[in-house]
Amino acid sequence: MDDSAGLAIAFEEAKTSYNEGGIPIGAALVASDGKLLGRGHNMRVQLGSPIHHGETSALFNSGRLPARAYKGSTMYTTLSPCDMCTGACLLYGISRVVIGENTNFLGGEGYLKQRGVEVVVLDNPDCRELMSQFIREKPELWKEDIGT
Amino acid sequence: MDDSAGLAIAFEEAKTSYNEGGIPIGAALVASDGKLLGRGHNMRVQLGSPIHHGETSALFNSGRLPARAYKGSTMYTTLSPCDMCTGACLLYGISRVVIGENTNFLGGEGYLKQRGVEVVVLDNPDCRELMSQFIREKPELWKEDIGT
Ligand SMILES: [Ca+2]
Ligand SMILES: [Ca+2]
Ligand SMILES: [Zn+2]
Ligand SMILES: [Zn+2]
Repeated sequence: MDDSAGLAIAFEEAKTSYNEGGIPIGAALVASDGKLLGRGHNMRVQLGSPIHHGETSALFNSGRLPARAYKGSTMYTTLSPCDMCTGACLLYGISRVVIGENTNFLGGEGYLKQRGVEVVVLDNPDCRELMSQFIREKPELWKEDIGT
Repeated sequence: MDDSAGLAIAFEEAKTSYNEGGIPIGAALVASDGKLLGRGHNMRVQLGSPIHHGETSALFNSGRLPARAYKGSTMYTTLSPCDMCTGACLLYGISRVVIGENTNFLGGEGYLKQRGVEVVVLDNPDCRELMSQFIREKPELWKEDIGT
């Protein structure tokens, strides 16, 4: 799977969440051989959960896996990962994080690089616009999700 | 609530998880006014979840909260927090992290301090012994939980 195909899955998840009245951030975890391990979106509204962000939902939906399954894997996410999702990628030794955009929020990209994770920012207009629209529409919900 | 009372709740959670056949790590999130916001334990076995560690389960069980609810709060955890749980505490601006022990696993304590979080290690023998016993009994399950 190439990076634009991986990000497209993450963006589909983000749109699904938006259409559910949720926070439009999606993610997909792809193994080193290109197999999709799991995909998911922020579930703060849908589950009432503060720990189901896009990336952690993709991990949750990937289920229990041995460490070797994450080796060489890529986490696709529509938005720059927050501290929690940054840490989740580090815990499991995810090798690459491919980010739709970091204009609406800049998360732990520097720390990921410092810890040896490859970070790619695609600066995708669809991701940027959907997130901008959401922040305009529901600023309080967005603040809650990033603890501000 | 003093630190030994907070840690006692986290340890009760750890024992519950051990008795369920799960990973014996527990946590409790206590607000600045001493109110218990939530408590929980690792749910890898019980839920098949790679994102429900002790600390993230305590956050999950605390539900949706505004940022101000976490101000001045303390996360009690029986074991030094992994990168994911370290990041979760940073995301929500938790002020203190009180740790039962860091002999069996040393997590993101240095990074928490670097980011301005107060870290206290109680070096509690009950926490240390329960975790040691678990690692002896189920080394593969433990490795899976820390991505090694
Ligand atoms: Ca998210
Ligand atoms: Ca745990
Ligand atoms: Zn996140
Ligand atoms: Zn953890």
